[in-house]
Amino acid sequence: MSLTLAAAQTIISTALAHARSRSAKPLAVVVLDAGGHPVAFAREDGASLFRHDIARAKAMGALGMGDDTRVLAERAKGNPVFFQSVSVAVGGNIAFSPGGVLIREAGTIIGAVGISGDTGDCDEDCALAGLRAAGFNQEIPA
Amino acid sequence: MSLTLAAAQTIISTALAHARSRSAKPLAVVVLDAGGHPVAFAREDGASLFRHDIARAKAMGALGMGDDTRVLAERAKGNPVFFQSVSVAVGGNIAFSPGGVLIREAGTIIGAVGISGDTGDCDEDCALAGLRAAGFNQEIPA
Amino acid sequence: MSLTLAAAQTIISTALAHARSRSAKPLAVVVLDAGGHPVAFAREDGASLFRHDIARAKAMGALGMGDDTRVLAERAKGNPVFFQSVSVAVGGNIAFSPGGVLIREAGTIIGAVGISGDTGDCDEDCALAGLRAAGFNQEIPA
Amino acid sequence: MSLTLAAAQTIISTALAHARSRSAKPLAVVVLDAGGHPVAFAREDGASLFRHDIARAKAMGALGMGDDTRVLAERAKGNPVFFQSVSVAVGGNIAFSPGGVLIREAGTIIGAVGISGDTGDCDEDCALAGLRAAGFNQEIPA
Repeated sequence: MSLTLAAAQTIISTALAHARSRSAKPLAVVVLDAGGHPVAFAREDGASLFRHDIARAKAMGALGMGDDTRVLAERAKGNPVFFQSVSVAVGGNIAFSPGGVLIREAGTIIGAVGISGDTGDCDEDCALAGLRAAGFNQEIPA
Repeated sequence: MSLTLAAAQTIISTALAHARSRSAKPLAVVVLDAGGHPVAFAREDGASLFRHDIARAKAMGALGMGDDTRVLAERAKGNPVFFQSVSVAVGGNIAFSPGGVLIREAGTIIGAVGISGDTGDCDEDCALAGLRAAGFNQEIPA
Repeated sequence: MSLTLAAAQTIISTALAHARSRSAKPLAVVVLDAGGHPVAFAREDGASLFRHDIARAKAMGALGMGDDTRVLAERAKGNPVFFQSVSVAVGGNIAFSPGGVLIREAGTIIGAVGISGDTGDCDEDCALAGLRAAGFNQEIPA
Repeated sequence: MSLTLAAAQTIISTALAHARSRSAKPLAVVVLDAGGHPVAFAREDGASLFRHDIARAKAMGALGMGDDTRVLAERAKGNPVFFQSVSVAVGGNIAFSPGGVLIREAGTIIGAVGISGDTGDCDEDCALAGLRAAGFNQEIPA
């Protein structure tokens, strides 16, 4: 099982269509493979310059720690000193806000999607729309 | 004039279709805006892990120096010590091989495309196919 | 006195056996020499991608500051601004959570072990099991 | 198919036993997974301090470019300006000397081994001994 470019493009196009349907701010969406390497990316017109870096840091952070950034953001609130040192130790490859979501197929992590541009909740909602359309994360995690 | 996501996606999809029509190796294609920030990216299945970094270094190098990487690679052969120092000075944001092509609209540079995966000549040929399809670089540069 | 590969491998294999005996999450374990250079490393199947970087940051942080990361994490809670500046100043080579433990032989620091994957307490417990098995840290530090 | 810690440790222990049988200089051996993340590492007593970084750069370079470093080193001789720019563009994660070998199972790349310490030819010979013992790379690449 590995993440194809076709699946990554479905995730991105659906996430962006969902963003437009709910009038989200302009977004950047990145899809990484299981090793954290970029498969596909799109930045909507008007999205600001850091959106790529933040979206990628969300996706990479989820992969690196093995949890969605919604979970990591909660943990970081309770132990900020540790998580800030992690942020530097991993070269900034983590961002503590919802919107970084692991991509699972039959229980195996095959990549991650990261979105930045609107609130963390909105970013994550668009990511989940993309994952559903591509047929991933159908099982409810324990 | 600025580079839209729609135009960037046309460049990428056409470049990849052209690559398949000529049986190129799996490619990575990145499109940057005039400031060097990513607009869109795709890595074909089977392309190796560094292809993103090299494609981006080609596109950024073209923007940073104001010339396509075909020109830069020629110059670097004639003055390797200088261009190697540039490579380090700009943090690796340049790669001396064809495949990094400036995007021009009515004579103005509005971005760059970078491709890596096959020979530099093939990478550049795919980039030019993408630019033609999107309506850019219609004027012959002086 | 210096840390041998054989001793480092004993530390790692015992730490991982101890982790399995207490049903810890998958761990990464690194052993550094007195200069902070890697001697041996192992990442268990299923451990997430950042575990190497975090384990190494714990071990290096202990060596760099001359104290186990349990002590450093306590200090960082009381003075977060300073320790965050340290984290950046040393290039991320420190992580403020238990699990980075100095290796002492006859009172001399000869290296450090770093573990990441479960709670800091569990990571440290596994590190101490490894150090005991290898015959280190027999004296009680003042 | 993915690379287990047990397989990585077999590669390392066999490579080092082979090194001793042929009186190689002290070696460092690293095994990376398909995404370039460390699975296991060992540095023999007496190996100098950069051996870890060089071994890892060989393994990562092979993964990143999709070829063993023996092939990459030959190519780099013919196009040094390009490959030096690649070296910087990928953050030093490549080393142009034999001893970085892709790990293949049933034709799929599942990781890479990198060895540094003796000549490139000797380093590679030890890597191949490790891969044979672990049952990888049994098919002759096209």
